[in-house]
Amino acid sequence: MARWEGDTQGRLERAALELFQEQGYDRTTVAQIAQRAGLTERSFYRWFADKREVLFGGRTDLESHLVRAVAAVPPGTAALPTLLAALATVPQVVRPREFLLVRTAVIAANPPLRERELIKLAALAEALTTALVDRGIDAQTARLATDLALAVLRLTGQRCLADESADFHATLARSAADLAAVAASTAGPASIAGSAVAASAEAARP
Amino acid sequence: MARWEGDTQGRLERAALELFQEQGYDRTTVAQIAQRAGLTERSFYRWFADKREVLFGGRTDLESHLVRAVAAVPPGTAALPTLLAALATVPQVVRPREFLLVRTAVIAANPPLRERELIKLAALAEALTTALVDRGIDAQTARLATDLALAVLRLTGQRCLADESADFHATLARSAADLAAVAASTAGPASIAGSAVAASAEAARP
Repeated sequence: MARWEGDTQGRLERAALELFQEQGYDRTTVAQIAQRAGLTERSFYRWFADKREVLFGGRTDLESHLVRAVAAVPPGTAALPTLLAALATVPQVVRPREFLLVRTAVIAANPPLRERELIKLAALAEALTTALVDRGIDAQTARLATDLALAVLRLTGQRCLADESADFHATLARSAADLAAVAASTAGPASIAGSAVAASAEAARP
Repeated sequence: MARWEGDTQGRLERAALELFQEQGYDRTTVAQIAQRAGLTERSFYRWFADKREVLFGGRTDLESHLVRAVAAVPPGTAALPTLLAALATVPQVVRPREFLLVRTAVIAANPPLRERELIKLAALAEALTTALVDRGIDAQTARLATDLALAVLRLTGQRCLADESADFHATLARSAADLAAVAASTAGPASIAGSAVAASAEAARP
């Protein structure tokens, strides 16, 4: 995080988020962001294709970081523990909490940005699935593990944003344990074909 | 499924998918779809806002169907079993396999349609989470269970499309069991903080 505080990219990100918060995302221009950061527009475009990418550049960083982290997990580790080990390294690349809070609010208020976030998340899921397949895990297991890991990451992020004092690693472990508990309540074949289904099938008739 | 074979909506869907397959999605017009179905354009617009909705109308049906099915599961059922019971009723509303195969291929070949699919899936996830919260399940557990159930649904759909002879309920149960197995390999707090993490954190350094 020290990196973020001082360098050009970090200055541009902080300036952009301040302006998004003060005057709204739509009304903020690249010229204003560069000016606020004390840099030229040319500097801005060296780091970001457009103002939208200020919000999503971190996602690109996260994806390439996590793919490298997956590759570095000792061979033979099972799919989900591999991804959880990679997620444990997220603090190395994550933006500061104040950035993420504003980012979350800006995206939530803007449907096209929400769509962009979904697309970035889908790309992250595909990249992680591929990274697991490259380690010899079958594609279906890789995709299941990825879906589970991203559910854990989402919950961990939500909890850390909601509670300033939350420790990332403790929260990650707690979220993984919560996921395991929810998954353990899976009904077996007998109960899936059983009375709950019959009742719901009946009631769902038009 | 009998419904789909004969009614107006089904005729339009089949005509549209035939044309998408024969000449491509982009080159197909609403006029052509109506003509192929032996209906007027006016009939088309009574069922679909545009040709894209021929592909996604089923998603809307699926969402409202599943929300009703969740509400019909006996009270006190845990989050994930509730969703799995609801998923077991999917054959009541699912389109025929030949429709889904073409639909999948058309969407895969067209990035804006892939984005639309992501948005529809996100809406489905929110609707199911809300349906669970309405049953008294806390929001975080509801979202975890929804993410797990949608991972099971995705895998079930993939397996059923790949194997014509697959039974939906047996495949659903098998996919839920596979998910439970992947989730059960969750590393506990000790191993998350342990050697795999240290190794991957080290190797992930630039």
